[in-house]
Formats: sequence, C-alpha cells, structure tokens
Amino acid sequence: GVDYLECGWPGANPLDDAFFAALPRLQNTRAVAFGMTARAGIPPAEDAQLRAILTAPVSAVCLVGKTWDFHVDVALNIPLEQNISLIAESVAFAVSTGKEVLFDAEHFFDGYKTNPAYALACARAAWKAGARWVVLCDTNGGLLPDEVRAIVQTITVHIPGEHLGIHCHNDAEVAVANSLAAVAAGVRQVQGTFGGLGERCGNANLASIIPALILKQGWRTGIDAKQLTHLTPLVRRLETRLNRPHNRHAAYVGESAFAHKGGLHISAVVRNPRSYEHLEPSAVGNQRKILVSDQAGKAALIDRLEALKIPLPQDKHNLTVLLNRIKELEFNGFSFENADASFVLLAQDILHGLNNFFELQSFRVIDEKTVLADGSVETFSTATVRVKINGGMYAVEAGGNGPVNALDEALRSVLLEAYPILASVRLVDYKVRILTPHDGTQAITRVLIESQDASGRTWNTVGVSSNVIDASYKAVEDALRYKILLGDNK
Amino acid sequence: GVDYLECGWPGANPLDDAFFAALPRLQNTRAVAFGMTARAGIPPAEDAQLRAILTAPVSAVCLVGKTWDFHVDVALNIPLEQNISLIAESVAFAVSTGKEVLFDAEHFFDGYKTNPAYALACARAAWKAGARWVVLCDTNGGLLPDEVRAIVQTITVHIPGEHLGIHCHNDAEVAVANSLAAVAAGVRQVQGTFGGLGERCGNANLASIIPALILKQGWRTGIDAKQLTHLTPLVRRLETRLNRPHNRHAAYVGESAFAHKGGLHISAVVRNPRSYEHLEPSAVGNQRKILVSDQAGKAALIDRLEALKIPLPQDKHNLTVLLNRIKELEFNGFSFENADASFVLLAQDILHGLNNFFELQSFRVIDEKTVLADGSVETFSTATVRVKINGGMYAVEAGGNGPVNALDEALRSVLLEAYPILASVRLVDYKVRILTPHDGTQAITRVLIESQDASGRTWNTVGVSSNVIDASYKAVEDALRYKILLGDNK
Repeated sequence: GVDYLECGWPGANPLDDAFFAALPRLQNTRAVAFGMTARAGIPPAEDAQLRAILTAPVSAVCLVGKTWDFHVDVALNIPLEQNISLIAESVAFAVSTGKEVLFDAEHFFDGYKTNPAYALACARAAWKAGARWVVLCDTNGGLLPDEVRAIVQTITVHIPGEHLGIHCHNDAEVAVANSLAAVAAGVRQVQGTFGGLGERCGNANLASIIPALILKQGWRTGIDAKQLTHLTPLVRRLETRLNRPHNRHAAYVGESAFAHKGGLHISAVVRNPRSYEHLEPSAVGNQRKILVSDQAGKAALIDRLEALKIPLPQDKHNLTVLLNRIKELEFNGFSFENADASFVLLAQDILHGLNNFFELQSFRVIDEKTVLADGSVETFSTATVRVKINGGMYAVEAGGNGPVNALDEALRSVLLEAYPILASVRLVDYKVRILTPHDGTQAITRVLIESQDASGRTWNTVGVSSNVIDASYKAVEDALRYKILLGDNK
Repeated sequence: GVDYLECGWPGANPLDDAFFAALPRLQNTRAVAFGMTARAGIPPAEDAQLRAILTAPVSAVCLVGKTWDFHVDVALNIPLEQNISLIAESVAFAVSTGKEVLFDAEHFFDGYKTNPAYALACARAAWKAGARWVVLCDTNGGLLPDEVRAIVQTITVHIPGEHLGIHCHNDAEVAVANSLAAVAAGVRQVQGTFGGLGERCGNANLASIIPALILKQGWRTGIDAKQLTHLTPLVRRLETRLNRPHNRHAAYVGESAFAHKGGLHISAVVRNPRSYEHLEPSAVGNQRKILVSDQAGKAALIDRLEALKIPLPQDKHNLTVLLNRIKELEFNGFSFENADASFVLLAQDILHGLNNFFELQSFRVIDEKTVLADGSVETFSTATVRVKINGGMYAVEAGGNGPVNALDEALRSVLLEAYPILASVRLVDYKVRILTPHDGTQAITRVLIESQDASGRTWNTVGVSSNVIDASYKAVEDALRYKILLGDNK
C-alpha cells in the first residue's frame, strides 16, 4: 500500500547499479530512481549523472536540488538565479522524457528560515516545471513541530498541498511529530523509512507515522486496514534481513509495545484492554503480552505446547522440570523464542523421552589457509564427524566453504544412509550473535539456523557455546534431528 | 541541574527500601519518594503505604491518583466523589507533614477526553489541597501533540501553568513532541527518563527534551550551558551501567548523531559544519564524525586522512586508487566506517607503501569435540600459525577457548619475539555479522574487532570472508599490524 519506493541512485555505485539491473517486480508500489539536478554549465540532456537516472527502468524519478541560498553559495558556488534555472531545466527535462518527477527540496526549512523568498522561488520553479511533488526536506533534522507547521502553512498558499511532500530526519527525536504537523498543515506525501533507518538519527519512521495517520487521525491512505496488520511482521522481517537486533520498545511494532506487568494493571487490562492500551495491538499486527509470574509462566508454557501439538504429560511435575530447564538454558544464552524446532526437541525429550536417532562421538574441523609461492591464497575447511547410530559407528569427512558448511555437509552425509529423508534438508539462514562482547574472542556465541526441506517447510534451531563451531554444530544437529522426528518424506 | 529525582517507592519492595535507607547525597537535585494516594475507607494518617512514603528521608513526595472516571469505576470500584476526597485528603495530609507534594494525575488525558469536568475536578482538588505540582499524565502514551496542546491550554485556565507538569509515554513515538507541546501550552515541569527508559515504549526522553528546550527554544532551566555538555557522557554512562547496547542513532547523544557520509555533503560540512548540522555537537557533549563509505567522495576521504594524520600523497591519482579500492572492498562486505585501524593500514599502504611487518605463510585451526565413554564432553581448539618475518620463518601452535581465541593466541605468540610491544594487546570486543544470510552456512561473514593496549587506547579492525575463521584472522592480523605501525611502547 506504500505509493513510492525509492530504490537508490543509478550510476552512483556498483551496488545501486546491480539493484536497478534486476529490479524486483512491485505490485501497487512505484519504483523511484533518485539523483541530483544537472550540474551547472551542462545542459540537462548532456549531464551523465542525470541521464543515468532517466534511463533507469522506472516510471518515476526523485531529483534533489538546493533551496538554501547559503548552500548554493558555498557548495555549488554559482549565482542564486542559476540554481533556480538548474532546478527548472532539470525537472522539465525529466518530465519531457516521460517520467513522473518528485523534487526533493534539500534544506528547505533551514533555507526558508534565512531567505524565505529564495527557498520558495526554488520550490515553485520545480512545481512550475512540472514536478508532480515538491518535497520539503528538513535535511539537518533539527526542526520542531511548530516551526514545520507554520512554514508549511505559508507554502501551501503558493503550491497546493496536493503537490507537497515532507521529508524529516530524527535529529531532535521529533521526526514523527514533524511529519504529522506537515500533514495537518496540508502536505499529502510523507517520506520516511520503516523502523526509522537512515544516517545519523534516521529518517522519519513510517512504522509510527502510518498508524497515527490511519488509526488516530482517520486519514485515507493507500493502505487499508488489512494491510496495516502487516506492519509489525514487516518491520520484524526487515530487522531480521538486516541482522539488526529487534527494538523491543519500538512504538506500535515492538515486542514490548503492548506488554503489561504489575498486579495493579493486569486485572484491568484483562477486563478492558482499552483502559491500559492506546490502541488494539492486532490493528498493527502486534500482540498483547502479559509479563508473568512463575505460576503464569506455566500457563504460557502449556499454551505453547498446545500450539505445537505436543501432548501434555501425565505427570504435571514434568512441566515444572521443563520450565526450569528452559529458564536455565535461557540464562546461559539460549533463546527459544525464535527456535521452535529446538524447543520441540527439548520439550519432547523432557516430557515424553525422545529417541536420540544418533549420538555424536566426536567431530574435528580443520581450517587451513596457505599462501603459495606465487602469492595466491588457498583456503579450505574439512570436517570429520563420528556418530553412533543404532549401535554402529560411522564416520565421514567432508569439505566445505568454511568450517560450518563443512561440518553441516559431514553430519548430513554420515546420517544419510540411516535417514535418507535428510537428503532434501538444506540450511537457508544462518545468524551469529555474540552475547558477551566484552569478553573478546572468548565470548559466548549464539547461532540461529533456519532449515528447509523439499516441501518448502522451514524450521529454526539454536545452539550456544563459547566456541562458534560448537554452537553451530548444536544448531545443525537440532535441525537434522527435528527433520528425523517429523519423519515424513517431503 | 535536574530539579527532582524520583527514587522509587518506599515500602514496595526490598530494593527500594534499601535505596532509601542509603540515599546518595544530591547537590542541586531533590530526591522524591513515589507512592499512591490513600486507599478508600482508611484515613490517610493510618494508611501504611502512605506513611511509608512520608517517613522516607526526602523533602518531596509524588502521589499518583486516578482522574479517569472509567478507572475509578473499574479499578477502585468506589463512587466518583469519594476518589476526589481521597486525592484532596491524601495531598493535604502529606503537606501537613511538611513535604512538598507532586500529584501525578494518572490517565489525565484519556480521562479528560471522556469526562473533562471530572478529570479537571480531580486535578483541581490536588492543587487546592496544596500540591506544589499537578502533573498531567498520558499514561497509555497514545496522544498526539495537537491534542496535548489543546487540552493543556484549557487546563491552564483553571490551574496556573507554574503549577502544572507533563508526563508522557512514547507509545506513538511522539513523547518528546508531546512534552514540548505541553510546555508551549504553559506547563513548567517535564517528567521523563534519560534515554527514554521505561516500560512498553518508554517514558519521554529527557536527553532529547532538555537540549530542545534550552538550545532551540531558549527556555531557562536549572541546567546551564556547561552542565548541558555532560549530557552525552551521562547517557553513555547510564547505558554502560545498565549493560544496554549504545543506541548509536539516539538524537543528540548517539555516536552517529553527528556522523556525516555521502560525497555530496562532506565538502560543505568541512567548510561550514553548521550547514549540515542542526546544532554544534559539543553543546551536548557529543562529537562530529566523518565516515568513509561507498557513497563518499574524495573530499570526505581527504578529510578523514587529515583527521587520522595520514599525509596526502604527492600523486593525487593515488587518492582515486584508494577510493576505488574502498568501494570495491565495501561492495564485497567490508565496512571501514567503524574500523579506523583497518582504514589506516589500507590508506598507508596504497598512498605511501607500507612495510608489511610480517607475512602469513599459513594457518591451520583444529576444533575437536569428543564425547567420552562416561558421556562427558571435551572440546578444544588449537591453531598453528606460520609467518615470515624479515626473511625468517616462524611457527607457533597455541590452544584456546574456541577457534578464534586460539588463532589470536598463536599469531600473537609467533610475532612476540620480533614485536614485543604486542604483549600488551588484547581483544576487548568481537562482533560477527552475516551479510548474505540466505546463503546459509556459506554466507559472507564480517568480523569487527576492538583491541586495546596497556595505555587504554582502543582501535577497531575488520575482516571479511565466506569462512568465519578467515574473516576473524584478517581482523586479528590488522589489529596487530596497527599496533606495530603505532610503534610505541604503551
């Protein structure tokens, strides 16, 4: 439901070029190429930078230009009038090639505060030249909401709000409020990033602006109520993709955003959640979380066992044993929240006794790097794994691209004869987190692995050790054990 | 320079009691004990909870009371009028014991939106009973700045702004803006926490509110310009104390808050920082930071070289060679932004030719895990490193707690005779990031290492490889090379 997606700067660096060369297909969102207005003294049609943007396979482009007289002086070093011409000519040229044009008015607010007539003239030049959107940028991120609102109100007299956008940075921790103030004053496009990614203190956080506009202020946007429920999963997926730790305290989408604790609150929350929540968590795809005592810990455990279709034990005492074991492992660095498969193996074993399927006897991993006489480098990893299966001893050696890959190959090979269903298993994601970074290379390491079989089903396992190889082994072992436990042939 | 410090709830738990029993001496700040208004049906003088608060060794107390009719109904389950009496009697009793009283009007805004007359009556009762401050609380944290301002403006007609405070939560990511809106509307006390600590999404962040009030809006507070320069160190110290990771992107106080990258910006920043900064970083005790990244231009590179005291080359073409090499390495996963020492080694080598100090011939790392007959497990790692130093060949084998630790030990040992200054070097931080997680265990791995010598100086290095051991080796090698380059004996 987001209208535009800025995809990078064609021609600026190899990464952006690679992205535009294989642009993903978007459904309701328009891809936008970003770049600058033409350089002084060069006709826009001959500016290589501008041409690279306009030949990108997108229907919309966003051109950034200067609107602060000080920057025209100091950075461009050209007469003020010439900058206005550059803006008008660059926009007009881009429009003439058939592109929809967004104009990012860089430093608009700082410019307006020192020379309002000039900043406005630059913005109007872009609009008159055919820009669909003139986006007012608080590039340095220092404005406060009252200033934003007052300035935007003035601008809407000269450029209709339907053609104005806002672009804020979070340097004063008010980018969300500034964006909302600009909308209240008339703008109809908001630029930002999910999770507030961006340099310095980040761009305005769309994950907070979107629900405020829709749920609190009743604006109609391209995003409907159903799409809004994807907000939390979207931000979490983005964090995972970037291997950033989840910000539990993020507004709307954080794991703690609707977490309640304290006896005083809980009964009221349960009777009427609205009394202690600013909105219904499911509206943004999030969940209420009751932080619990040991007693309620057991209730949560039972919930999870039922969700995973693990039968409850006859002897209820085993639930306490399992709960204590989980607490102990989590204290030592395990995390079962994102490792369902490791949780299932542990729970099945403690509650019902689990066949081990195989027993590790030993592994040995060798990593070698050799500089040859001609200066070239050879690196290789070999792993040997010895296991006991049904009383018999088996060993396999395998090579790999790095120690974990070699270990994974060796373990799967040695098990394959006894468990041919492992042939289809492959690791699709591998994450390493250092839990006690200030112990240097002796730190505790947590490895999370995602595996997949031929049916496309995925599952997650965890391993922890002070040795990264050993932590990886544990997560790989759990991944294969889980597949054997499933026992199907997919 | 902060006026009040809320220290906890005497009588609520052993931790808070212990804190009040040994209250630290404060200079310009008043310690405050927190608690609730008296319970229904008990005269305030006989309410044990209230007495515990009033006997705490502090001159000010903060009493929280209900002001939302719905909560009086559902949570207290008493008539609305009785709640008003409880507030008035509790405040009056506290005042009669000689305390200065702050009254936290819980859920004031939600209450005011549903029953304005009742919420106002509660707040006025506290004020009439002698409360120095009536603090309007957005307990659920869902309000937006316009609502806060409009409601506070109405309240100032009935209670003078000099007696009003604001208490916001960040559930809509606008707690800072809400606090500023309330001040603009007349309140003269702002409650919050440094770094926005607090349940759910946190309380209003004082580290962002204070500089906005003082530097951007010109308010006079208890904090002078010199005290304001302690802001960044204060927040960093708090993070360390709480063992929380530093939030690099925090407004004003984050390590990246004044970091600049991107070729477009840098030349102007260097010429006039104000043009790309919303305020002078030293005003809040922070520092400017120039980043080199794949977006950076030659100007940024030159600036960083100067900052790191690396002489510029005679042949300017070498700058282009260096810039292209950085771009290529960053495309392949390196990141020099947070690895100054690796950057120095690379730049010195390309610009001026660097003595290698030593040349790796080969390394071999062996990780073994063995399950013994009694079920116990033995895990150990051994590394062998062969290097050439001044034409001679040297080899050392060392054990360690995990492969990287072993490799680090072996490399330092083999170099020690030729470079005794390496004896004091130790690794203090070790981070692993998987850059292409969807390649599973064959993913590209980036390792960042922080090292320290006996003088306390620290430096950062980076290594990248598809093999985590090789990536770690590169970062360790750079760390030691850098220390040899420094060449001092600290």
